[in-house]
Amino acid sequence: MNFNKVDEKVVKRLKEVVGDNYVLTDPEKMESYSHDEVTGDKYKKMPEVVVLPANALEIASIVQLANEKIIPIVPRGAGTGYAASSVPFLGGIVVSTERMNHILEVDEENMIMVTEPGVRTGEVQTVAAKHGYLYAGDPCSGDSSFIGGNVATNAGGNKAVKYGTTRQQVSGIEIVTPKGEITTLGGKLKKDSTGYCLTQLMIGSEGTLGIITKVYLKLMPKPKNVMDLLAVFPTSQQAVKAVPKIIHSGIMPLCVEFMANNSIKTCENFLQEKLPHSDVGNYIIVSVEGDNEQVLEEQCMLIDDICSQNKALETLVADSERIWKARKSFGEADRACSLIFSAEDIVVPPSQVANMVEKMQIISKKYGIAINCVAHAADGNVHADILKENMDIEIWNELLPKLRHEVYTYVYSIGGKLSGEHGIGYKRVHLLEEFANPVELKMMKAVKKALDPNNIMNPGKVIQI
Amino acid sequence: MNFNKVDEKVVKRLKEVVGDNYVLTDPEKMESYSHDEVTGDKYKKMPEVVVLPANALEIASIVQLANEKIIPIVPRGAGTGYAASSVPFLGGIVVSTERMNHILEVDEENMIMVTEPGVRTGEVQTVAAKHGYLYAGDPCSGDSSFIGGNVATNAGGNKAVKYGTTRQQVSGIEIVTPKGEITTLGGKLKKDSTGYCLTQLMIGSEGTLGIITKVYLKLMPKPKNVMDLLAVFPTSQQAVKAVPKIIHSGIMPLCVEFMANNSIKTCENFLQEKLPHSDVGNYIIVSVEGDNEQVLEEQCMLIDDICSQNKALETLVADSERIWKARKSFGEADRACSLIFSAEDIVVPPSQVANMVEKMQIISKKYGIAINCVAHAADGNVHADILKENMDIEIWNELLPKLRHEVYTYVYSIGGKLSGEHGIGYKRVHLLEEFANPVELKMMKAVKKALDPNNIMNPGKVIQI
Repeated sequence: MNFNKVDEKVVKRLKEVVGDNYVLTDPEKMESYSHDEVTGDKYKKMPEVVVLPANALEIASIVQLANEKIIPIVPRGAGTGYAASSVPFLGGIVVSTERMNHILEVDEENMIMVTEPGVRTGEVQTVAAKHGYLYAGDPCSGDSSFIGGNVATNAGGNKAVKYGTTRQQVSGIEIVTPKGEITTLGGKLKKDSTGYCLTQLMIGSEGTLGIITKVYLKLMPKPKNVMDLLAVFPTSQQAVKAVPKIIHSGIMPLCVEFMANNSIKTCENFLQEKLPHSDVGNYIIVSVEGDNEQVLEEQCMLIDDICSQNKALETLVADSERIWKARKSFGEADRACSLIFSAEDIVVPPSQVANMVEKMQIISKKYGIAINCVAHAADGNVHADILKENMDIEIWNELLPKLRHEVYTYVYSIGGKLSGEHGIGYKRVHLLEEFANPVELKMMKAVKKALDPNNIMNPGKVIQI
Repeated sequence: MNFNKVDEKVVKRLKEVVGDNYVLTDPEKMESYSHDEVTGDKYKKMPEVVVLPANALEIASIVQLANEKIIPIVPRGAGTGYAASSVPFLGGIVVSTERMNHILEVDEENMIMVTEPGVRTGEVQTVAAKHGYLYAGDPCSGDSSFIGGNVATNAGGNKAVKYGTTRQQVSGIEIVTPKGEITTLGGKLKKDSTGYCLTQLMIGSEGTLGIITKVYLKLMPKPKNVMDLLAVFPTSQQAVKAVPKIIHSGIMPLCVEFMANNSIKTCENFLQEKLPHSDVGNYIIVSVEGDNEQVLEEQCMLIDDICSQNKALETLVADSERIWKARKSFGEADRACSLIFSAEDIVVPPSQVANMVEKMQIISKKYGIAINCVAHAADGNVHADILKENMDIEIWNELLPKLRHEVYTYVYSIGGKLSGEHGIGYKRVHLLEEFANPVELKMMKAVKKALDPNNIMNPGKVIQI
């Protein structure tokens, strides 16, 4: 790929579009735009320039300029991604949506919230709740992530068991296309069979098919009560095997999370807070929600029964704040143990979670590398953080690809895939080349070429052209 | 578009692929493949040849042949569509999936059913229920439609309020691409962010981007109880305006259907069965489901309250069989009144249903043409059957396009679209050209050209190349 550099003329043009104050070229100011949450120097790259546009029209002008000059565009939300999607490895213009941070409308009649892409996910949730609604998207990074980034990566999170991933929360988007045109896909509609569903194609395309400039989010009536249960099991296998039984009971839980013992201990050390049975326990956290308290209590009793039959040491009503704080600290806690680590986002058929967790334990032993696991267990989404700790960086760089190759060879052998919610980005682009069905990969590349003929929109991410 | 004709050599090659018995060229045998449920001679066209393949490999060979010879392929399910998607207007090979009618697997652990495309929707529902599961797709044509057709058109139906359209029921598909290659998209996964979501792009593409040869369907635990309420209102406006209040109450109903008085009368006449308050009533049918009977009863009381406050004449526990028979007879009943009619499938933001229904009444009066309305009211999906009755065909052919133009000009002015669940097919292809956002339309065309460079896959449907 032969891209041109950002020169002074381009910077001048960018300043004409967004104003002098919103074009950054100072390395100190650009440093925080040089990486996301993926650790290690190979996932960092200083931008040539960062622009902070105010609206879709400005973004359209920037993209038109990039096409004219054949310069990459790298869209960026809050930089909380785990796939290095927003890092400008091939140079070009980083387009941050941070100034496009307004909630435009809460349409109560249609139960739709319309936002700009730079609104924090947590703010979407809070504003929805103030109006008596639930916004069901709930990635662990919700306090800091932007809603536009959630849509671009099809973020998952804890409530996906009941409500699905971000894909299911979106009824429409406005985008700037790779050619610099603006269009709305979908809208305030509950259903739509009016031609190809480009909305769903765009969701999860990680800024490679366009920049999201507006989002139409589905709201729903907020259930009155939520209860969290914590079931503690002596082994990870017993914990994970209880999950399908809970799902098959007819309860539709809000969340079903698994934490392996080593992950619990890591979070406990990081937070300096004692967690229940942390010496030997493996956790299943189950949340149920609904309007009727009695029904919830019956569901909790049923879950208690199921867990007891599966040899739980104890099932208790959880100290919600504490247990979710622990669960959500997983990434940070692993980083505190090991400045460099590889966060895997394996997804397998739910029936295979127990096998997958066991396989990770075997691989961890084989390579002598610690792997901490948690899982959105009912979704089949296993987060495995592979920790470098004190290993020599050269050995790490040699072993990690072998280890990941072994992991994904197994994952694909049991019907799984590379990513449940973090996306492909730059981090998994070589793995996708290796493991995806070649016909599917060809189709993805054909779609990319068709919509972005100059390959300027986040090039080198998701697929290689 | 310059397509070649099916000649004797092509027929011979087709016979080599699928066997002599499964290639039809006799006009009498092909007649039933010359139309779908769209009425009128202009929506009929006799196929050049019909093939009945047994599996994906045979379909791949047929598509490869079609590419070699530049002959259109027209995929066909049960022919129950309302958009003339499966009619071979440009000639070519009709590929019927009727022999691919096997349920391949009911995977209880992962709650996934794997089927061939030619299985009837009703059979999917029945087999799911036998295993204690719910398959939530439920188009009105379910007794006769094929599941592959449901996926190809993103069929909606009565349960979409709670469960969404077919799009939400599918976790994966196997397809034969327009180039004659076979690939699986998605699988037995609950979530997936592994590259572009081609599964969702294919769903609802009406056979223009490939032929579906296998479907992975989501199952869920079957709720123990369902209750149907029938609320009767003196005016259609009062009926429709009660709907958002039911949704906002926090009840998540399974169905919320609206039937206007003229539609009730038409169904009553067709079925020769007296329906409650059919003299003046307009219906809202609400179904609620759940495991706990007491909760359901409370929900029914709340719905009763809401309807009473909105001036319902009566709210009663419905005679379910009778009321659903009436609702589902809508299309047939209209056909019995008027052999030729135009079934519109308008979708608008739910808050606009009342305005939409009123607008249809005004337009009906203006043109002196009867329009019968029912609606999946909570989804904003208004079915309006425009009846020719005894009108002279030439006048009808002149007036109908004007009437439809007026309808969709209004629909787009209130944020609506052409189709909620029937699709674009051939019937709405000109309307899409006229009403879709030009940038979106260009994107759709670019995707089509990229995936089907010879434009052989159901050409002339959805979009015009």
